[in-house]
Amino acid sequence: MRDWSMKGRPEVFAPEFNQIAGMPELFTDLTIKLHFVRLCSHGREWNYPQRQQAANTLYFVLGGDAFIRHGTNTMPLLPGHAYLLPRGCPLDLHCHTHIQKIWCWFDLLLHNTVDILDGQTTPFHLGQHDFTLAELPDMTARLFRRQIEDHLFWLGTICRYLARLDQDLSECYHHTRQRTGKLMPLFDYIENNLSAKLTLDELASVMKCHPNSLSRLFCRTTGMTLSRYLRRRLMQKAAAMLADRELAVFEIAHELGFADEYYFNRVFRKYFGIAPGKYRHGFFHDSAGPESSDQQS
Amino acid sequence: MRDWSMKGRPEVFAPEFNQIAGMPELFTDLTIKLHFVRLCSHGREWNYPQRQQAANTLYFVLGGDAFIRHGTNTMPLLPGHAYLLPRGCPLDLHCHTHIQKIWCWFDLLLHNTVDILDGQTTPFHLGQHDFTLAELPDMTARLFRRQIEDHLFWLGTICRYLARLDQDLSECYHHTRQRTGKLMPLFDYIENNLSAKLTLDELASVMKCHPNSLSRLFCRTTGMTLSRYLRRRLMQKAAAMLADRELAVFEIAHELGFADEYYFNRVFRKYFGIAPGKYRHGFFHDSAGPESSDQQS
Repeated sequence: MRDWSMKGRPEVFAPEFNQIAGMPELFTDLTIKLHFVRLCSHGREWNYPQRQQAANTLYFVLGGDAFIRHGTNTMPLLPGHAYLLPRGCPLDLHCHTHIQKIWCWFDLLLHNTVDILDGQTTPFHLGQHDFTLAELPDMTARLFRRQIEDHLFWLGTICRYLARLDQDLSECYHHTRQRTGKLMPLFDYIENNLSAKLTLDELASVMKCHPNSLSRLFCRTTGMTLSRYLRRRLMQKAAAMLADRELAVFEIAHELGFADEYYFNRVFRKYFGIAPGKYRHGFFHDSAGPESSDQQS
Repeated sequence: MRDWSMKGRPEVFAPEFNQIAGMPELFTDLTIKLHFVRLCSHGREWNYPQRQQAANTLYFVLGGDAFIRHGTNTMPLLPGHAYLLPRGCPLDLHCHTHIQKIWCWFDLLLHNTVDILDGQTTPFHLGQHDFTLAELPDMTARLFRRQIEDHLFWLGTICRYLARLDQDLSECYHHTRQRTGKLMPLFDYIENNLSAKLTLDELASVMKCHPNSLSRLFCRTTGMTLSRYLRRRLMQKAAAMLADRELAVFEIAHELGFADEYYFNRVFRKYFGIAPGKYRHGFFHDSAGPESSDQQS
């Protein structure tokens, strides 16, 4: 299959490539942040209309009969295939019996701040994945060990599947760069100080302009009102915190600057159409019933 | 080979994994920054004693008869194998006739600031790479196109090979976290203001302590004097800028805060044992002679 281990003094391989070529330092402003990779099965409780994605989601579907609906289009989630559901893209999730998948949550960030897939409104079919049944036990073992090399392994896997987006990815990148250009300090400040208490006046003072001109500039540049963007980022962060087991719901509400848990519950439910507790439940309980939650370490 | 495309209603795959498992948000403080990937051939001009690596280097060796020496140890660079040369690890590079390789330069950063492989003093053999001769043309085509999806593809490839470091990588990570803990604001400041003009007093004021106590603290925590660390980061940055074609040597000297090009030349030569112009030459000229430099786009 391979003939690298040539004996004697090997000739130069492939003379047509006998030149120095490579990518310049072009995309070092792009980083990928992996929140988690999980192996999970869900039954019909997975069905959910108009679920917002709180982070970019990559599915490697292993089994089941699920499909997603975006607008009037339906996309089946075929076993053996990979799918990207961009963050903020509202979808209906459906399955008749169950869905089994490897499920990755990640951000693809420009300047560690703005997700370049934010704003994508359609899911992507990335084609067949190449996880063979033989290597799957080893790959899933990596999910249980939680070591840094496993983190890098999955990061690498996700990058290579994202590369299949080709032209679409270039568009996301250049569009985001263009869209955020002048506003980058604002996005930076928002990410570092994200809280329900953040005010327009505070942001205007960061950008050294009048609150009204900031609102207008933001709306013109991004096509979205600033308050809508803030609520969206706040809810995405809340969802990411719920997907982690560390903090109780009332602690998350407090951390994010909400006056009380009840108000947080109301805002979250309005945004995602589901209460925070139930949202978390969906992350940690599978179709085998509540007792299976004891198995996850 | 695969039986994903089962007909009818597929059963749950591998019931022993029928539980939710995954990595918590543990390593989101780690980012990888890819400077470049190049395909290159060098002849005997590649031979160089005590060459410092300016960034982490990953070699996918395709052909040739090269070897590296670190201290008294010799490691052959076998065609078909992958090697990691950590940044700052001084090596002798040798070949009898030539070396052909895919050559990646990257940083593996904690909090976007400190490279966790910095401080590693030995190269690593990562085992055979799995680039088949058949897929190599497609992979190298990705080097010429310079699109974001190619960047992600190579990022993914590097991550997956780094995952082979296993225990060593965990040690680097935890060691760096421990080592940099309290000093993180200092490292942050250094990265954002790296220049030959940076003074100890300025850094002490950032850390709100006396210059002498900062020196002592830095030395005790990292095992290296602060001035040595500053020179090292400055030279690594200079080398990275030289590897890029954008700026002339005198512009780089100016950018890095050197009084003039001659002084920069002297410092660079003292650190790397080679003049900046010659160092850059080595990046862009291959064994086919100087005229081949016209081919690189």
